[in-house]
Amino acid sequence: MHNADTIISLATPAAESALGIIRISGPLSVALCKSIFGLASPTPRKSILKYYKDTENNIIDHVIFVYFKKNNSFTGEDMIEISFHGNMIIANQILDDLILRKCRLAEPGEYSKRAFLNGKFDLTQAEAIAELISSKSEAEIQIAKQKLLGRFKKELIKHRGKILQLQTAFEAAIDFPEDDIKIESYDNKILVLNDVTKEINKLINSSRIKTSLNNGIKIVIIGPPNAGKSSLFNKLLHENRSIVNDKPGTTRDYISEYIKIGKFNIQLFDTAGIRSGKSLNEDLGVELSFEMIEEATILLLVLDSSTPYPTDFKSKTKEALLNKDIIIIENKSDLEKKICSNEYPPSNSTLSASIHDERCSEMICDQILEELNKLYPNDNFNDIIVNKRQMIHLVEALNFLDDSLDLIKSNEPEEFILQKLRLSIEAINLIIGESTNEDMLDMLFKNFCIGK
Amino acid sequence: MHNADTIISLATPAAESALGIIRISGPLSVALCKSIFGLASPTPRKSILKYYKDTENNIIDHVIFVYFKKNNSFTGEDMIEISFHGNMIIANQILDDLILRKCRLAEPGEYSKRAFLNGKFDLTQAEAIAELISSKSEAEIQIAKQKLLGRFKKELIKHRGKILQLQTAFEAAIDFPEDDIKIESYDNKILVLNDVTKEINKLINSSRIKTSLNNGIKIVIIGPPNAGKSSLFNKLLHENRSIVNDKPGTTRDYISEYIKIGKFNIQLFDTAGIRSGKSLNEDLGVELSFEMIEEATILLLVLDSSTPYPTDFKSKTKEALLNKDIIIIENKSDLEKKICSNEYPPSNSTLSASIHDERCSEMICDQILEELNKLYPNDNFNDIIVNKRQMIHLVEALNFLDDSLDLIKSNEPEEFILQKLRLSIEAINLIIGESTNEDMLDMLFKNFCIGK
Repeated sequence: MHNADTIISLATPAAESALGIIRISGPLSVALCKSIFGLASPTPRKSILKYYKDTENNIIDHVIFVYFKKNNSFTGEDMIEISFHGNMIIANQILDDLILRKCRLAEPGEYSKRAFLNGKFDLTQAEAIAELISSKSEAEIQIAKQKLLGRFKKELIKHRGKILQLQTAFEAAIDFPEDDIKIESYDNKILVLNDVTKEINKLINSSRIKTSLNNGIKIVIIGPPNAGKSSLFNKLLHENRSIVNDKPGTTRDYISEYIKIGKFNIQLFDTAGIRSGKSLNEDLGVELSFEMIEEATILLLVLDSSTPYPTDFKSKTKEALLNKDIIIIENKSDLEKKICSNEYPPSNSTLSASIHDERCSEMICDQILEELNKLYPNDNFNDIIVNKRQMIHLVEALNFLDDSLDLIKSNEPEEFILQKLRLSIEAINLIIGESTNEDMLDMLFKNFCIGK
Repeated sequence: MHNADTIISLATPAAESALGIIRISGPLSVALCKSIFGLASPTPRKSILKYYKDTENNIIDHVIFVYFKKNNSFTGEDMIEISFHGNMIIANQILDDLILRKCRLAEPGEYSKRAFLNGKFDLTQAEAIAELISSKSEAEIQIAKQKLLGRFKKELIKHRGKILQLQTAFEAAIDFPEDDIKIESYDNKILVLNDVTKEINKLINSSRIKTSLNNGIKIVIIGPPNAGKSSLFNKLLHENRSIVNDKPGTTRDYISEYIKIGKFNIQLFDTAGIRSGKSLNEDLGVELSFEMIEEATILLLVLDSSTPYPTDFKSKTKEALLNKDIIIIENKSDLEKKICSNEYPPSNSTLSASIHDERCSEMICDQILEELNKLYPNDNFNDIIVNKRQMIHLVEALNFLDDSLDLIKSNEPEEFILQKLRLSIEAINLIIGESTNEDMLDMLFKNFCIGK
């Protein structure tokens, strides 16, 4: 760390726009207000219109600058924000000038790192800022916001409090060994431990939801050949606002696009029709369809209601479709119905439709939304969803708690139990950032965007 | 115009970043401070950290907002700037919420248009803002800044002042016709008119410079086949920071890339070697080379010094190379010199070099820079360079002044002269924006970027 350095960076995207912002943080800030803008003691937080003049007194731009006083700024250091005309040559001229004035370019996440080190927020909140900025769906935003508000930290501190109480109790047991009350109090301690492990388990499981929300909830269209799968795929694609997604495209043998239904970010897949393969290529396509069924959150099973339920489809998919969330779409409802619903796999709902019908897409989307709201009820968006780093330490904490539970049950000495409890507390402290090390902080903040 | 509307827009690029800014301008601003942030009378220009809550009281983001008071803001209206975490979903949530609160999305340039209509600046300054933001070189930035500072307006007002004086004088001549002093005073008036037309002519010519600076100064590499043109092209390309340029690429039969030498934005061309064509394709290539010679600001003539100056090259190019700025590069200086400089076309300088030599590129760039500094002396960057719209009205003004001069010289009635003078003043007023019409303003501001 070079906390003595004054760091600078563009805080807005590097592109043409009405405004761009450059952020300065560090001890030189006050002096820079004087040397650049001629204001020795600028009113903190006041937007001031000034010419930005370089060291040779040439006007670079007409800017608005704001000075933020130490302790009362994002980083906790003296800061300046400069708002200039959004041209990247001007941005570079200002940055170059600031470098001449002894500032240096900030590393990614360096502002947040300083804010963390200055106690402006804990590590879970710092990570929440990065997660908020890179969120690709409203659900992710909601989850990041919960962490930013400090809910995750609060919950961890609650769990840690209970473990600390246990620790104190075991320490007391060492100091005042009274064997006769040991068993009874241990039962109580086991209850507390079970409670904490249950809560931490819940946190760990909730991150599974995040993974699916992050990557887009996978909805897979399946069915026998010629049932109308591709028509449905295109219909859903065109009638639902597709969202920008920078995830690498697939090169495999199915089609996939991102759409949005309600607030849900969805990756929609069209798969090869499933039947008894006649060629190797068909077999490969069918194999992939089964992989997609496995990964799907919701399956849209498209059937041609004007023909009987295909027996080869039935036999091939029977196993794979068990325990899946399935919406059956009986396509071609305008023709005479020859399909028998007794043959269907267990499904959540069945819709009769003609995919070429105007209102078909809306009906199917409503049904999808109903299922998704069941799978991800609103409350879930207020769940705390842990990220990879947090998960690693959370699993550590859980394992140490499980270990201590085993030790208690097998009546091992208190010292051994205490060691495990201490390690679980240490793991929680690593999540919050009460224990840290330079490598871990570097790893964590380098994934932040520049200027944050 | 719907000045009563409160307009909103993203002012930063629509991409992930540390910060994003949304601008609000219009009469609802004060009420929005109350309804969104709970502050009925926010201190103007003060950065205030608040939760942005939507109409249903859900937190959208933790933001900093600044209120700018009417008459003391960019548009001259009450304004709010909201700085949020740079995620486009958050941006859209805020914009959607503001629309619910009766704001509407701003059209491109609408903030600047309101600023102009509220007298915050004249049209030349409004245009300068757009030009500043879209500038692709430091030279363009410098030119836009001059206009933004009001120098163009000041110069136009100076010229208009002189024309107004003439107008008054002619009006006096109508009211008090004294034929005997007519000729003498007319001589004086002709002097003034000549002076004004000379100045306006200078302005018009200066915009030629702008065109070349805008598109990149064209430097064209020419020479006989196999003299080392492509090697030089690649060398200059790799050793000079190439700059981003969104101009459409060429599809014609030469190679062109953008490079930067010193502060100059350069479009470098490699052309087909010029010799007596043996095929139609060769002839076409050579024809294009001649077109490029015509358009070039500087020619780099690459010769193989180990062979005599090719006679077919000499005869073919003799005419085309007259009166061009040429830097001759005698390549292959490591071999025995067989070329005779007496044969060369008139050139600005001759460099002996081996293009594969380390310092060759630097030497050539230094020479190019010397030429460019001569062609575009520093002072030129402080010239006022007019844009297309300004040019149209400037040429109009000039033509009306020329007309009035002709009328004076041929002793036509003062009324006719006066009419021409009035029309030239009107043309100048259109540039400044003292005369306007809705169509013209719409045309002008629609080219601005969103949020400006």
